[in-house]
Amino acid sequence: MLDRYYDELEVGATWRSRGRTITEADIVMFAAFSGDWYPLHTDREWAAKTQFGQRIAHGLLVLSVCSGLWNIAPGTVVAFYGIDKLRFTAPTFIGDTIHVELEVLAKEDRGPDQGVVTFQMEARNQRNETVMVATKKILMRRKPA
Amino acid sequence: MLDRYYDELEVGATWRSRGRTITEADIVMFAAFSGDWYPLHTDREWAAKTQFGQRIAHGLLVLSVCSGLWNIAPGTVVAFYGIDKLRFTAPTFIGDTIHVELEVLAKEDRGPDQGVVTFQMEARNQRNETVMVATKKILMRRKPA
Amino acid sequence: MLDRYYDELEVGATWRSRGRTITEADIVMFAAFSGDWYPLHTDREWAAKTQFGQRIAHGLLVLSVCSGLWNIAPGTVVAFYGIDKLRFTAPTFIGDTIHVELEVLAKEDRGPDQGVVTFQMEARNQRNETVMVATKKILMRRKPA
Amino acid sequence: MLDRYYDELEVGATWRSRGRTITEADIVMFAAFSGDWYPLHTDREWAAKTQFGQRIAHGLLVLSVCSGLWNIAPGTVVAFYGIDKLRFTAPTFIGDTIHVELEVLAKEDRGPDQGVVTFQMEARNQRNETVMVATKKILMRRKPA
Amino acid sequence: MLDRYYDELEVGATWRSRGRTITEADIVMFAAFSGDWYPLHTDREWAAKTQFGQRIAHGLLVLSVCSGLWNIAPGTVVAFYGIDKLRFTAPTFIGDTIHVELEVLAKEDRGPDQGVVTFQMEARNQRNETVMVATKKILMRRKPA
Amino acid sequence: MLDRYYDELEVGATWRSRGRTITEADIVMFAAFSGDWYPLHTDREWAAKTQFGQRIAHGLLVLSVCSGLWNIAPGTVVAFYGIDKLRFTAPTFIGDTIHVELEVLAKEDRGPDQGVVTFQMEARNQRNETVMVATKKILMRRKPA
Repeated sequence: MLDRYYDELEVGATWRSRGRTITEADIVMFAAFSGDWYPLHTDREWAAKTQFGQRIAHGLLVLSVCSGLWNIAPGTVVAFYGIDKLRFTAPTFIGDTIHVELEVLAKEDRGPDQGVVTFQMEARNQRNETVMVATKKILMRRKPA
Repeated sequence: MLDRYYDELEVGATWRSRGRTITEADIVMFAAFSGDWYPLHTDREWAAKTQFGQRIAHGLLVLSVCSGLWNIAPGTVVAFYGIDKLRFTAPTFIGDTIHVELEVLAKEDRGPDQGVVTFQMEARNQRNETVMVATKKILMRRKPA
Repeated sequence: MLDRYYDELEVGATWRSRGRTITEADIVMFAAFSGDWYPLHTDREWAAKTQFGQRIAHGLLVLSVCSGLWNIAPGTVVAFYGIDKLRFTAPTFIGDTIHVELEVLAKEDRGPDQGVVTFQMEARNQRNETVMVATKKILMRRKPA
Repeated sequence: MLDRYYDELEVGATWRSRGRTITEADIVMFAAFSGDWYPLHTDREWAAKTQFGQRIAHGLLVLSVCSGLWNIAPGTVVAFYGIDKLRFTAPTFIGDTIHVELEVLAKEDRGPDQGVVTFQMEARNQRNETVMVATKKILMRRKPA
Repeated sequence: MLDRYYDELEVGATWRSRGRTITEADIVMFAAFSGDWYPLHTDREWAAKTQFGQRIAHGLLVLSVCSGLWNIAPGTVVAFYGIDKLRFTAPTFIGDTIHVELEVLAKEDRGPDQGVVTFQMEARNQRNETVMVATKKILMRRKPA
Repeated sequence: MLDRYYDELEVGATWRSRGRTITEADIVMFAAFSGDWYPLHTDREWAAKTQFGQRIAHGLLVLSVCSGLWNIAPGTVVAFYGIDKLRFTAPTFIGDTIHVELEVLAKEDRGPDQGVVTFQMEARNQRNETVMVATKKILMRRKPA
């Protein structure tokens, strides 16, 4: 769990999450929830004929799972501004296990009580391949006195 | 459904999706799937004391739902490169109905058979407020001869 | 639970199931599972402008829920042949509670060990309105000696 | 997506949907949602001793998935009347991929603005076996002027 | 289905449920619902290094599934008091099929209309190993006159 | 998150979790997953006539949610032995928000590397009523040197 306040985070600090295996059930559930049934994710026959040779997880499935692995402590965050330059750099196959690597890239004060932290977020699989990379900006609170 | 090939899309073309009401069940299901139980989304008492006064949908829930509303026709897409400058510009409350507005921002040839299309994607609610905006790059196929 | 064998069922016999309240969550889950997001079921604004004035449950949601309420005892069924003349006779709104009324319409021997039973199946709500009616044919076993 | 109005559909016209692989997760989710845990679908040991030798998908799972594959454009449908003569003609096993084949069987005017269309709907798997067949009646709108 | 009233249950009586195969999808869905993503259940790589050599089902997943297999008839129960001495005695792996064995251990009158029944509940798998054992106390009704 | 090893936990230490609102969707999803559709949880009309006047959450839903709120750090636990004297002391209604209160009741060494910790676990709602209480025994690891 990332349980630090704005003033407790240092540029360059890193953090590694637990892992989560991406199962066939996860892909079905994400297709169902999102409504994105693109056949590369949900049609075994169709996917077998692509460059990947099999179904792959939705990119946004990987991103969504990362948000849960990140696991921020209640009270530290003011607002989630958004994401810059999200890239999917390798496919996630059924049975792959991914985890998140975080790094604090930058900090910017916003008044006496809070500040924006820029995180580099990578998702890596069990072969240590980076499958997703993103820059995330979060408005965080200073530790209450 | 967005059922156009690379050469059929024109810069400036726009498209509007059907709507989807974001229910309390959606928020619970997304919290469960992603593992992101941040109390702003899942604890009514906690959320009542925030600036929003109530629970709001996860930003990535909105983004994931948009990917289903977008609904690309099989065969037109080669690869989903990623997202640039994703911003959440207003909260999505339980009961809000969102839809997607797409616009083709740019096209860039990549050899004779395909090209990268840059889309501007906005999620708007029933009050016509923009709740999310993103730029999405997709490698698309030319129409088969 | 319908726990009778072919020879234990009499033409004219009736059976009433427990009830199940159809919630907004049920409609979202069925839309997600089936992939049928038709806005009459999933878009509150759109549905408000229809003759129903609100979202209604998918017909096949009602049919699927009925199959669980029916609850056949393991070992009594050989095969589920199909359904004849399925009709949706009234809308099911969020919060309605439905149950199943069964009646044995006909029996037809198929050799010494089994036979086809034709059931009339009705779904009724808490106002005792019939919302669905169907005729279902099932190949059932005689009670083992 | 079936995006035609009443007057745009011709008797004899056909349409083929994308495919969807029916996974073990789909069967568990449908059993859970419907409440139909009949052991032929949900008990591997029990199913191994049947004529099928393994678990098979619920018939209504196949029917429900077909309703999503069919994917009707908002605004074209007035009411879904029901189904006639639904038959399950072959089992759907875990890992099979099904798609829908539609054919317009008949049209019947209902006043100046709408009409009933009778569709023949077939579900076929990757071996091109027909696993389900049904006749569906839908009240559809004429194209707005 | 356990469809007996207080006065119809005898000490020493036993009952056996249908079975349910515990799939990978069940484990993912229970992790998601409960929020318990402990890696022994959800991280294939991590679990491979434990004494079990693979992922195992959550103990409370097994307990929850048992409550559905038990399947009490509406109207017989007044209140579910709780559980005494719940023990998980063997792991449940992906693909195992469990069923419930019940035995009436004791009965205790509570006035003229009801009484507390103590059940011994065991979950057993397809190898007839007991994977869970619990003592459950339920306040039950006498059969209405 | 409870991120302590055996030797870092002291008898009498307490811990309070974040909260989670129990929604109608949670009750439907737990009924679906477990297969326990007892009408006190799933039939609004039936529940309205009970002493509670409305649907209440399953006891095991509350217990399962607590296991996720507890949120143990990977690596600290060897085995989850079970639960003693689980009691449901008040109903959980739709919309209630529960959290977990833990207390270390006892510790017992088991060789040089591990020991059994007995926790008192209470679930409390937003009115600070205790809705569930249980004693849980967990075999935990000493902190690696």
